[in-house]
Amino acid sequence: MRIIIDAFGGDFAPIEPLKGAAQAVKELGVEILAVGDIPKMEECCKKNNIDTTGIAFKQADEVFDIHEDPTKIVKEKTNTSLHIAFRALADGEGDAMVSAGSTGAILAGATLIVRRIKGCKRPAIGAVVPGLHPDGFMLIDSGANNEVRPEMLKQFAVMGSVYMEKVMGRINPRVGLLNNGTEETKGPETHRNAYSLMKEDEEINFIGNIEGRDVLMDKCDVLVADGFSGNIGMKSVEGTASFMNKMLKHMFKTNLKTKIAALLLKKQLMEFKAKLDYTEYGGAPVMGVTKGVIKAHGSSNAKAFKNAIRQAKLYAEKDVSSLIASQLAKVEE
Amino acid sequence: MRIIIDAFGGDFAPIEPLKGAAQAVKELGVEILAVGDIPKMEECCKKNNIDTTGIAFKQADEVFDIHEDPTKIVKEKTNTSLHIAFRALADGEGDAMVSAGSTGAILAGATLIVRRIKGCKRPAIGAVVPGLHPDGFMLIDSGANNEVRPEMLKQFAVMGSVYMEKVMGRINPRVGLLNNGTEETKGPETHRNAYSLMKEDEEINFIGNIEGRDVLMDKCDVLVADGFSGNIGMKSVEGTASFMNKMLKHMFKTNLKTKIAALLLKKQLMEFKAKLDYTEYGGAPVMGVTKGVIKAHGSSNAKAFKNAIRQAKLYAEKDVSSLIASQLAKVEE
Repeated sequence: MRIIIDAFGGDFAPIEPLKGAAQAVKELGVEILAVGDIPKMEECCKKNNIDTTGIAFKQADEVFDIHEDPTKIVKEKTNTSLHIAFRALADGEGDAMVSAGSTGAILAGATLIVRRIKGCKRPAIGAVVPGLHPDGFMLIDSGANNEVRPEMLKQFAVMGSVYMEKVMGRINPRVGLLNNGTEETKGPETHRNAYSLMKEDEEINFIGNIEGRDVLMDKCDVLVADGFSGNIGMKSVEGTASFMNKMLKHMFKTNLKTKIAALLLKKQLMEFKAKLDYTEYGGAPVMGVTKGVIKAHGSSNAKAFKNAIRQAKLYAEKDVSSLIASQLAKVEE
Repeated sequence: MRIIIDAFGGDFAPIEPLKGAAQAVKELGVEILAVGDIPKMEECCKKNNIDTTGIAFKQADEVFDIHEDPTKIVKEKTNTSLHIAFRALADGEGDAMVSAGSTGAILAGATLIVRRIKGCKRPAIGAVVPGLHPDGFMLIDSGANNEVRPEMLKQFAVMGSVYMEKVMGRINPRVGLLNNGTEETKGPETHRNAYSLMKEDEEINFIGNIEGRDVLMDKCDVLVADGFSGNIGMKSVEGTASFMNKMLKHMFKTNLKTKIAALLLKKQLMEFKAKLDYTEYGGAPVMGVTKGVIKAHGSSNAKAFKNAIRQAKLYAEKDVSSLIASQLAKVEE
């Protein structure tokens, strides 16, 4: 099993991707193809004592700028580490890939270089979000498609279910629809129609609408959303958690009593912080394309990269793309 | 100043609305017109030692069911406490009103019984949400309109700005647009066009897009949103805060050491909990109608009701509806 990584994607490239890659080689038994400027990668590994056993390098002179028009990844920015990683995946030089680069560019490259699964109307980003369930849930779409049609939401349900069942081992995954109320009549027309489509389909274990306030409460394994409100919901969760963590940190520094309390709670506070920590969960797979493409969080550290590589490995091992293709065909019949 | 309350709206009616009303009479110097079944209200006050000084009662035989079709509030359910409260407001029996009943019915009644402000394209619900700023910010629309046009989003900005300036005392309120990225080019077409409209208008202190992860970070005083993603964002914040509070509570019960820590932190933990507590903030005004209508949270306790009554009083005192009317006219010129 060989995983391709875009070693120059993300806020802490290339050091954290390369460290994560080295950990993945040791712990997961994978080989890595690291794409980027080879002299820089070699220097970084040497300087930081990163063991390069099991890591091969592939040259790319440029880095795809996060502020660049994402569609340029396909035909213009062909010399970037992200484009060359996509090309290597499409050409079979690896089984799946990981990048912490621009979400839009990863989506565009996955769709147009790696290519869509036959029958998939629109690829989506399926983020695995931490919550009450120890392994979290999949939010799909978490930001790829601002505007959706009901049939697309239904396909998100199918793709998310395959992933949660095959990669995350969740039996008969419960599917919910992110909406502004629990009743069937809630939400815009698109959501009301998607509700009916999912309810009627026996291949989908649809449990109804989920409100924003219940997203973390383990009510479903797959949370279907349009990419716009899905993105806003997910980032609101993230923002609130980070806000509260900051307030807590501040609280423990108030005086001697609170500092003693912090010492007494040391172990529990670490567990608490880990609970909503994205680094434990790896990245977000692009769902609906022919090979495994995992988008890692922009601020991923080595551990987050390693976990994203684990996801990529599982995606390829379980042949998720083929399973999605056959499941989509089944639902369309 | 006389505030009308729907004494039979909300999860804890009539006791909490009546307790809140009695507190408001004492602390805010208002008179109250409490609408509902008079014998039941009188019995409730007697049984719970609620002082009825300053509270007048108005009979309504029925209660508007929260699961009922909201539009029925206008012509069919005319015998409910909510309808009669609206009618009393429209007829000038009070200066503003408060209800913790069905959001949809409150919106419908405010729009069609109390009536829209001339020039207002669509009334919206402006929730005051707690965050880093000690007085929170206004999220408008927080759930009234699933589908919006750019001009409507612009009007939400104008109405929210008037409220935050006049009622909350925020000078030259900063307006942000809830979107899936900070760049001008982000979001669906509606949001991109609304961005341009707000940026161009000198009456609006527009500071750009706000992502979900920044909603609590005091980046703006008025957060403009379509009602669908606004609702999802707001409830996601609420859900995450409640999830984390539960986890914390659980953490402090782990063992003797954590229980001692809880004792040491008693004062700080109360402040922490209060920080994201909706009861401190009262309710959500329906913006764009000719009189003050405040929607209190469904699970409001007496304190939340009292604070919603305070909001209603300020709304009427500052004549927010007239100010909105003239500001909307100014922007339309």
